[in-house]
Amino acid sequence: MKKLINAPDKVVDEALAGMAAAHPGLITLHTEPNFIVRADAPVRGKVALVSGGGSGHEPMHGGFVGRGMLDAACPGAVFTSPTPDQVLAATKAVDGGAGVLHIVKNYTGDVLNFEMAADLAKEEGLDVGAVVIDDDVAVQDSLYTAGRRGVGGTVLAEKICGGAAEAGADLASLAALCAEVKASVRSMGLALTACTVPHIGKPNFALGEDEMEFGIGIHGEPGRKRVTLEPADRVAEMLMAPILADLPFKPGDRVLLFVNGMGGTPLIELYIVFRAAHEIARRHGLTVARSLVGNYITSLEMAGTSITLLRLTDAMIAHWDAPVLTPSLRWGA
Amino acid sequence: MKKLINAPDKVVDEALAGMAAAHPGLITLHTEPNFIVRADAPVRGKVALVSGGGSGHEPMHGGFVGRGMLDAACPGAVFTSPTPDQVLAATKAVDGGAGVLHIVKNYTGDVLNFEMAADLAKEEGLDVGAVVIDDDVAVQDSLYTAGRRGVGGTVLAEKICGGAAEAGADLASLAALCAEVKASVRSMGLALTACTVPHIGKPNFALGEDEMEFGIGIHGEPGRKRVTLEPADRVAEMLMAPILADLPFKPGDRVLLFVNGMGGTPLIELYIVFRAAHEIARRHGLTVARSLVGNYITSLEMAGTSITLLRLTDAMIAHWDAPVLTPSLRWGA
Repeated sequence: MKKLINAPDKVVDEALAGMAAAHPGLITLHTEPNFIVRADAPVRGKVALVSGGGSGHEPMHGGFVGRGMLDAACPGAVFTSPTPDQVLAATKAVDGGAGVLHIVKNYTGDVLNFEMAADLAKEEGLDVGAVVIDDDVAVQDSLYTAGRRGVGGTVLAEKICGGAAEAGADLASLAALCAEVKASVRSMGLALTACTVPHIGKPNFALGEDEMEFGIGIHGEPGRKRVTLEPADRVAEMLMAPILADLPFKPGDRVLLFVNGMGGTPLIELYIVFRAAHEIARRHGLTVARSLVGNYITSLEMAGTSITLLRLTDAMIAHWDAPVLTPSLRWGA
Repeated sequence: MKKLINAPDKVVDEALAGMAAAHPGLITLHTEPNFIVRADAPVRGKVALVSGGGSGHEPMHGGFVGRGMLDAACPGAVFTSPTPDQVLAATKAVDGGAGVLHIVKNYTGDVLNFEMAADLAKEEGLDVGAVVIDDDVAVQDSLYTAGRRGVGGTVLAEKICGGAAEAGADLASLAALCAEVKASVRSMGLALTACTVPHIGKPNFALGEDEMEFGIGIHGEPGRKRVTLEPADRVAEMLMAPILADLPFKPGDRVLLFVNGMGGTPLIELYIVFRAAHEIARRHGLTVARSLVGNYITSLEMAGTSITLLRLTDAMIAHWDAPVLTPSLRWGA
């Protein structure tokens, strides 16, 4: 295992300490239990957004904490759900009196632990809603999930709902907007290499030099099939076809096209995939109104990519464009 | 070779097309020869900043084109200098009548080709200045360089000079500011893995499972020595010690601490390195006034990191903080 770490059991704590040291004006780190809040939390009168999940998917979610996006993020151990006490503590820390919305990726542990935390928070008198994102069209169930997995669509939901929350939306409207994003977004990914969870110390699966895992999950869980490595244009076709068919996306739709890196794939390759996906979208009659390209929801050092397509409304575009000031997504602020 | 590409000889052209498709409001791509300009170029009355270099270091430099940073970037083939005709065409395209400053990384081919382009531009009546960045303390000369190599300090020079140019600095002041950044910045890097140039098709060197290359260059050229893999805190010490000694940095100095990923190292590890480097800086009596953590000057999919330390003045801080609107660095705009 070749990693820039000190000890496997210190990876998350030390990375969080590094994040806090790097972004003192944007975020504040709480420990025991671990969670990150925006530096000015709680924001009085604003609905607070809380997300979280296993570590190893950086910058998700801690990198998305800040003005215009998440109020708090709860990082679990690597590829492990955060605990209910983390989520409860974060929920209470950011509640500004207008309620809290949990944005949860659909993994069994995440869903259970966020639900338990929400129940406990409600017992303490807080107003808590939740939306579970399940945008991955690759598989119906997986090693970690009943139903579809939550992947890249979560980044878009967090930004769009963050913009709306900053603009004053109440909890019910925010939950409705988040549900609308969830209903309008689809994703699919593939891997060229495995990754190594630090406390396991060896790759989570093996791929031949000419193989790729198609429909992979962000924890390296198996996808739809193992296939021969294809050129980037063909890879983009393989990812876009099931996405386009699933919603389905229709000619005339405006979309946000998000090409994500799994962590070990260089940006030059992601732009090659983006070019191909953009052309496929155009041929399908879609208007790519907004774009995102880069490493936003990763699987440690895994090489690979995922494509996420979101059908946009005017409101979604406005909230996407709204100012955001987080460690990993910033504009207009 | 496992890459998301179509053909080795199309990598740069297709990635540039993808970039242009992803960021239509920010940048415009010119082809034959290839260069990227900010969408509103030329900006009348503003000094234009032009940089460039081999591709494979993304987002450098194309990702830094836009308001508040570069006016143009000239991407060569992978790990290959841009040609004089690219640089000349870009220089002419962005000249707004107030002159053009070339910011050049110190590699022999880059320096020669930028000089040739500057000479040709001057013959056509343009006012052109140049600063060569050479911040790498690892080696005095290398396979690609007479003198020290230009690495991470270039990102900081481009942002700070970009801020000053936007604020109206003239060519002489900008060249002086860029020279001051050059004189105040030092870097050092290491690699855990090699990378593969697409048209070569095999890794550019081999490292054992317990080895790292210390003082590596961004093209994988050999560094100071090959050593045994060390924990992240020790790695940070090994990189920081020669940086701190070289300028030298003194107690009381305010610095920008930049922990860069080489492309294949996940963000969670970069934050672990940042934590350690931040603590070393603090022990040395430095105030880390600004930070940058992520993949900004890479070597394709190489795993590894570099640390860059810049001694800040009030003016540098103001220009660093100024709004920037590029594909890969954005805030306040």
